[in-house]
Amino acid sequence: MARVLITTAPFAVHDSLPLELLHTAGADFEINPLGRRLKEAELSEMAAETEIIIAGTEPITEMVMDAAPNLRLISRVGIGLDNVDLLAARERGIEVTYTPEAPAPAVAELTIGLMLSLLRHTHVANLKMHRGEWDRHMGRRLPEVTVGIIGTGRIGSRVLRRIPAFGTPRTLVNDLKPEHKLVPELKLEWVAKETIYREADVISVHLPMTKQTRNMIGIEQLRLMKPDALLINTSRGGIINESDLYQVMSEGHLGGAAIDVFQEEPYKGPLCEIDRCLLTSHMGSMSIDCRSRMELEATEEAVRYLSGVELGNRVPEDEYDSQLMDRH
Amino acid sequence: MARVLITTAPFAVHDSLPLELLHTAGADFEINPLGRRLKEAELSEMAAETEIIIAGTEPITEMVMDAAPNLRLISRVGIGLDNVDLLAARERGIEVTYTPEAPAPAVAELTIGLMLSLLRHTHVANLKMHRGEWDRHMGRRLPEVTVGIIGTGRIGSRVLRRIPAFGTPRTLVNDLKPEHKLVPELKLEWVAKETIYREADVISVHLPMTKQTRNMIGIEQLRLMKPDALLINTSRGGIINESDLYQVMSEGHLGGAAIDVFQEEPYKGPLCEIDRCLLTSHMGSMSIDCRSRMELEATEEAVRYLSGVELGNRVPEDEYDSQLMDRH
Repeated sequence: MARVLITTAPFAVHDSLPLELLHTAGADFEINPLGRRLKEAELSEMAAETEIIIAGTEPITEMVMDAAPNLRLISRVGIGLDNVDLLAARERGIEVTYTPEAPAPAVAELTIGLMLSLLRHTHVANLKMHRGEWDRHMGRRLPEVTVGIIGTGRIGSRVLRRIPAFGTPRTLVNDLKPEHKLVPELKLEWVAKETIYREADVISVHLPMTKQTRNMIGIEQLRLMKPDALLINTSRGGIINESDLYQVMSEGHLGGAAIDVFQEEPYKGPLCEIDRCLLTSHMGSMSIDCRSRMELEATEEAVRYLSGVELGNRVPEDEYDSQLMDRH
Repeated sequence: MARVLITTAPFAVHDSLPLELLHTAGADFEINPLGRRLKEAELSEMAAETEIIIAGTEPITEMVMDAAPNLRLISRVGIGLDNVDLLAARERGIEVTYTPEAPAPAVAELTIGLMLSLLRHTHVANLKMHRGEWDRHMGRRLPEVTVGIIGTGRIGSRVLRRIPAFGTPRTLVNDLKPEHKLVPELKLEWVAKETIYREADVISVHLPMTKQTRNMIGIEQLRLMKPDALLINTSRGGIINESDLYQVMSEGHLGGAAIDVFQEEPYKGPLCEIDRCLLTSHMGSMSIDCRSRMELEATEEAVRYLSGVELGNRVPEDEYDSQLMDRH
């Protein structure tokens, strides 16, 4: 029997179909018993006999692959690939698939919710009320502010398509790739990232983690922002430098920030001390429908592999190129 | 000089135009120096010589009016009139005006933000993160849930017009008034309130405070709701019975609640103990643009009165009828 290790946990809680599919395919499978993101050494030990990993965001490094000589497929439940050493996988003939479309609607909707919370300071009022303090906060509405979106891919473009319903007057955009065609009806302005930092009231980042984006927003970029700017990161931890963010916010800069992703998770760092930091625990894709779709799509890849059928969502070549570029 | 007492505070912080208008009109004005909602006795004392009150939500009762023999105009900054004894005002020849349109966009936008927070439990994750606990919460998206809106007036209708952009599949509505024509494009289902309690996943109340709505949602209605239903009140405190809500939630019923309005404000009651209660401090109309518009419109009424010009937004007759009905 094929040994399938499901490292992302919880798994198949709201919909057991993935487990039924694995069962029907005759797979011998195990779900990560620790129920949290595995460390490199833990995964190395657990994956010793594994042929397929249905993977979360734990580090799947050369060390892990060397400890798992039978590994043939890494099927990522999700879209980010910064935790998988794609080049090491290719050298060893290990296939890598992912589920790029599934999480986007949930991350986009969370982002808009965070935007509305930041604008009205509901997170601060709620923290204070739970401490017994009544403090009314004056906020702003989307029709009053300039929104800046950095990253116009699957998630950023969904955010951009939804906010005009609120009457946003001016939306600035930028991406890592050069200016590309944007939906003309949305009346977006393609500008330099620095213009977004300087002029946007709400800034949201929707980029992958690469060498180019690591610490992309540090002390210098943060200081360019308006004193009451609101900053959102639901993409990857480390794109906004956490200690720089803490430094400027503890000095009173920025009106608020909503951070869902951290360099090291679980996060327990000093941003927890700042009331106007709205902190969530990497919950971007955690809606029942998206999670079920991601788990199902990742499991289907495993079943395809086991049945000798062509894989559906192999990681595209530019993801390998991007890791290669990062290395040099 | 006319004595104008501005009881709602802070006032004219983001836009000083209202004060300039009063100054130009030659009014002698004072802003509530306590900076919080006045009690009946405080107002009675403060209003002794007042001709015009530019009013918040403090009780403007017979006692207050008897203590203010020169009072000729109550100009409410806002829409709710449950704090003003309209019939006592009429008996004394005191005019009452209000600003019914101004707060609606801000309340509607806050409501949608609260909906998105409740659906994804971001308020719970944030509370826990600020306590040093990392706990990932699985949520739902608007396309997965049935929304129920009770009250289809200025605010409810704005919420109803905005949520379809998120792909809501089924929306139930009801109002105090009998079934009335709804925008057909929105595909709303007019149902009994009990059907909303039983079938909606997200329930939001947008009603005025009257005898009919006081305690409208008590223990019986709360128990009809789904165990994971999400409940929102940004209208008036007391429409949802607070102690009943506390009771069912402390027993584990309901997935969450967002309460912005309370029977007694500032609120410091036991709902503060419940993490999945998202509590804000009557912030519905507190966005800079709406607040400025409300303050300006209410001040313009005072200036109209002082200039002998016809008032613009006299409280309509049905508000008097509704208070008369409440009395009997």
